[in-house]
Amino acid sequence: MKFSLGANRYGKAECRLVRVVRDGGRHEITDLNVSTSLSGDLEETHLTGDNSAVLPTDSQKNTVYAFAREFGVPSIEEFALRLGGHFVSSQEAVHTANVRMEQYGWNRLGDHSFSRAGDEVRTAGVTVTSDSAWVTGGLTGLTVMNTTDSEFHGFPRDAYTTLPETHDRILATAVDAKWRFSTLDVPWNAAYAMIREALISGFVETYSLSLQQTLFAMGSRVLEKVPEVAEVRLALPNKHHFPVDLSPFGMDNPNEIFLAADRPYGLIEGTVVRDDAPEEGLAWSS
Amino acid sequence: MKFSLGANRYGKAECRLVRVVRDGGRHEITDLNVSTSLSGDLEETHLTGDNSAVLPTDSQKNTVYAFAREFGVPSIEEFALRLGGHFVSSQEAVHTANVRMEQYGWNRLGDHSFSRAGDEVRTAGVTVTSDSAWVTGGLTGLTVMNTTDSEFHGFPRDAYTTLPETHDRILATAVDAKWRFSTLDVPWNAAYAMIREALISGFVETYSLSLQQTLFAMGSRVLEKVPEVAEVRLALPNKHHFPVDLSPFGMDNPNEIFLAADRPYGLIEGTVVRDDAPEEGLAWSS
Amino acid sequence: MKFSLGANRYGKAECRLVRVVRDGGRHEITDLNVSTSLSGDLEETHLTGDNSAVLPTDSQKNTVYAFAREFGVPSIEEFALRLGGHFVSSQEAVHTANVRMEQYGWNRLGDHSFSRAGDEVRTAGVTVTSDSAWVTGGLTGLTVMNTTDSEFHGFPRDAYTTLPETHDRILATAVDAKWRFSTLDVPWNAAYAMIREALISGFVETYSLSLQQTLFAMGSRVLEKVPEVAEVRLALPNKHHFPVDLSPFGMDNPNEIFLAADRPYGLIEGTVVRDDAPEEGLAWSS
Amino acid sequence: MKFSLGANRYGKAECRLVRVVRDGGRHEITDLNVSTSLSGDLEETHLTGDNSAVLPTDSQKNTVYAFAREFGVPSIEEFALRLGGHFVSSQEAVHTANVRMEQYGWNRLGDHSFSRAGDEVRTAGVTVTSDSAWVTGGLTGLTVMNTTDSEFHGFPRDAYTTLPETHDRILATAVDAKWRFSTLDVPWNAAYAMIREALISGFVETYSLSLQQTLFAMGSRVLEKVPEVAEVRLALPNKHHFPVDLSPFGMDNPNEIFLAADRPYGLIEGTVVRDDAPEEGLAWSS
Repeated sequence: MKFSLGANRYGKAECRLVRVVRDGGRHEITDLNVSTSLSGDLEETHLTGDNSAVLPTDSQKNTVYAFAREFGVPSIEEFALRLGGHFVSSQEAVHTANVRMEQYGWNRLGDHSFSRAGDEVRTAGVTVTSDSAWVTGGLTGLTVMNTTDSEFHGFPRDAYTTLPETHDRILATAVDAKWRFSTLDVPWNAAYAMIREALISGFVETYSLSLQQTLFAMGSRVLEKVPEVAEVRLALPNKHHFPVDLSPFGMDNPNEIFLAADRPYGLIEGTVVRDDAPEEGLAWSS
Repeated sequence: MKFSLGANRYGKAECRLVRVVRDGGRHEITDLNVSTSLSGDLEETHLTGDNSAVLPTDSQKNTVYAFAREFGVPSIEEFALRLGGHFVSSQEAVHTANVRMEQYGWNRLGDHSFSRAGDEVRTAGVTVTSDSAWVTGGLTGLTVMNTTDSEFHGFPRDAYTTLPETHDRILATAVDAKWRFSTLDVPWNAAYAMIREALISGFVETYSLSLQQTLFAMGSRVLEKVPEVAEVRLALPNKHHFPVDLSPFGMDNPNEIFLAADRPYGLIEGTVVRDDAPEEGLAWSS
Repeated sequence: MKFSLGANRYGKAECRLVRVVRDGGRHEITDLNVSTSLSGDLEETHLTGDNSAVLPTDSQKNTVYAFAREFGVPSIEEFALRLGGHFVSSQEAVHTANVRMEQYGWNRLGDHSFSRAGDEVRTAGVTVTSDSAWVTGGLTGLTVMNTTDSEFHGFPRDAYTTLPETHDRILATAVDAKWRFSTLDVPWNAAYAMIREALISGFVETYSLSLQQTLFAMGSRVLEKVPEVAEVRLALPNKHHFPVDLSPFGMDNPNEIFLAADRPYGLIEGTVVRDDAPEEGLAWSS
Repeated sequence: MKFSLGANRYGKAECRLVRVVRDGGRHEITDLNVSTSLSGDLEETHLTGDNSAVLPTDSQKNTVYAFAREFGVPSIEEFALRLGGHFVSSQEAVHTANVRMEQYGWNRLGDHSFSRAGDEVRTAGVTVTSDSAWVTGGLTGLTVMNTTDSEFHGFPRDAYTTLPETHDRILATAVDAKWRFSTLDVPWNAAYAMIREALISGFVETYSLSLQQTLFAMGSRVLEKVPEVAEVRLALPNKHHFPVDLSPFGMDNPNEIFLAADRPYGLIEGTVVRDDAPEEGLAWSS
């Protein structure tokens, strides 16, 4: 044969699950989007259509809902670990399970009433094999803005550079963060709260000479605050706010009126990693 | 001629404007999406391409930014009225101006730091003619859920009805509300806050036998609380949460595990109107 | 009572239905998004939660699928008329039914293989009462561009006008068209094809001095070609393509390199109506 | 220091560029979305905010537009290679450049008139270092459907399996494909056309016992037809079409009426790789 099956996996994406826990009249809700993906001895279905190793994606979906009932969802990390462990241990052909989680926040309005907390999403990615497991966490959709304490200058100017230097600009971004845990012994929900707070305070409290500097400060702050995190990966779009030139209308614009642009946007991607971080293994494969 | 130009208008849609007010080190931000639309003696450009009556949409956009600098944005309703009034009074061909506003919320993180407050959007629609003006307000993207105190039964059953009756269900919706003011003498921002609160408390506090009943309660509460509102229009998608049948797996499901469905969805639309409401005039044309 | 229930309706939105007709080995597919909405004697459910007049939206959805099996889908207009007629005639409380249709196009790849034809969507809106019916058709998502034969000049210049005149520009828009039929005796599919062709040729063949002129030409062409159409409503975003200023890099730009902008955009809305068009009645209420 | 800067890069994302080439009255257009990303000696800006190595993303954007004017866009792969080469060779601090391209298709309506060809997007990802370069191509948004010749059975049944076996189902997917070239000596546009055709014919002509089997057939066909491709990566969502149970209404459903579901969906990911494929190097890093 001149070619072969390479890396492959399959699963059910985006199982939308809401769990309501009733403690007397006071309810708690968990709102999830769960995706599973399995890999292992799957060559036959690709080559011949023999599905004897292919646990249906429909069964994976059913497992998600049944496990939520049977075991609850103490945290998305724990729930994902349990799901992943189940697939690896119960299906001989499955050597690796990936589970991806999105959790949507809700604010309490009453004992059994809630309002969606916006675009911010807590995420997790879990990889489980027969003898190991890796957990990453994450956060997306957190849009933040500093209206001052941001500069950008001292950059090289080539033949295509027209950008003026600025000593006071708006800095805004939509945080897309992922972090890798070095252990499975983590108070997952408390850790998430601390990481989120570290990202926000890192953004707010950094006097910024570049979005890269802010990125490094945010990632560093997470590593300082949460010892179980080995590495933080950040992708920060620079959501440009351009001061509008009002001079044609006889007006100045003392950094008051801005056009919020859609595209293009700067995109700053970077990693802050603990010097003694363990090998990443399959952590990022989910 | 066998056919003619009917209703028409033109303008600039979606001018994204962020205004920063600096009171010493403490900043306030206003984040808007502004759309303008003008109508009047515009037949010539349609029939012959003679643009002598067509103030460019680019000029309309410039006006939005310049007016924000010159007059500020005390409320989206006032800002829209000022813009609309300007176009009608300064352009002879323009008889009617529509201005639509979206305002995005931000939470304070620090003196000059903020985070986006989510999908909820405050809206306004203003229509101005040479001798009159109308204002509507609105709110979209407020997603709310009651995990109990909702029933649905007693409905007719035809040949295509398979739905079981339910005496305890999740009720969730994304509130899309518009309201018409009967006067221009309104404390706009305070009124908005009261209307928003009335909509939420109407949803939370209504023991619901149908989403229609909830809708009417929400609209009624607005009219009770805010005398300047003549009419409330609500469009409430019924964001279905279906209890998952876990019996194939030997489990019960005491209203704990739900599948949050995307499509199709119920859509309930209704109006609550004050008995002595003034004529709507052009209020809804924006 | 100080306030009352005003206009209201309810239904099931976005029933996604694919129908496959097999004529031997050669298949035909119809891909629809169907929304129904009923109104009538619905006050009780709003005021007291008495649902005895509220045919469930779930039953409406079931009817959509069952009718597709029983009667087929000769055209979206006929299918909508049949659905609307059913609800009005079978439910005593229902006085008016609205049915909205979206149809997605597929290109043939083989006897039973197809590829989605893109963003273009054929739409219909039908309103049925006990003794009358109205049909509108429509089309959205058809994005077209002329790379020349478009000018824009001769417009008024106020204090906020900075736009230069142009004698050669790109004109691009995403056509959003709706039309009202004056009769129910229409060869629906053939009429749609002719209307679509008229809109496109009206765009392509008009030397344009303003997007308004193009709009009127497009609408007029429909009325010229399809006698059953009483009125055409068009909303045409001006998808701006700005020539990039390359002079800082020592280059000219002879209308070759453009930046395709997202927001803001011009928005031109207009109607062309036949002089002897019948009253619109409830045609636009769907 | 207890932690360090890891992998990082920065650039300008989503530069929307339309190029019009005029050959007399007959025009050709190229519609692109270009993203650049640079990496190298960028530690200082992260640690201290010293931007002396940070060519502004605004300059990168300007370069995109200027190069389109100076060198044209013979293919997205060539254009990306030229851009990447420029950044690496002209900026001492830049060791690696990534360029990502999206190209939107347009159908010809006339000599200088076009209509957007739908959701299908041609992509490319290029990585350039001082002494090497890698090119990947891709295609997204091609939605295809077979209305028969698809089965799914013979799968394992665990405690959570309720799915019935099927011997005739609809198979639909939205193709997301990427491929890696083993050489830079490729007739890029001709290769793209052949790869696209191979993917489509692989989908259409495969009698499918699983979407995995179809995936492998599609990837294999590409490798058979285009020798310059070393590897094909496919992500195929299983866009479920569920036959509607019409039996409650006294009807059968001989695979005629389907509900097109949104979420969840199966997701099949797989790679087909040539046995003598060269090392991937940085090919997938863009």
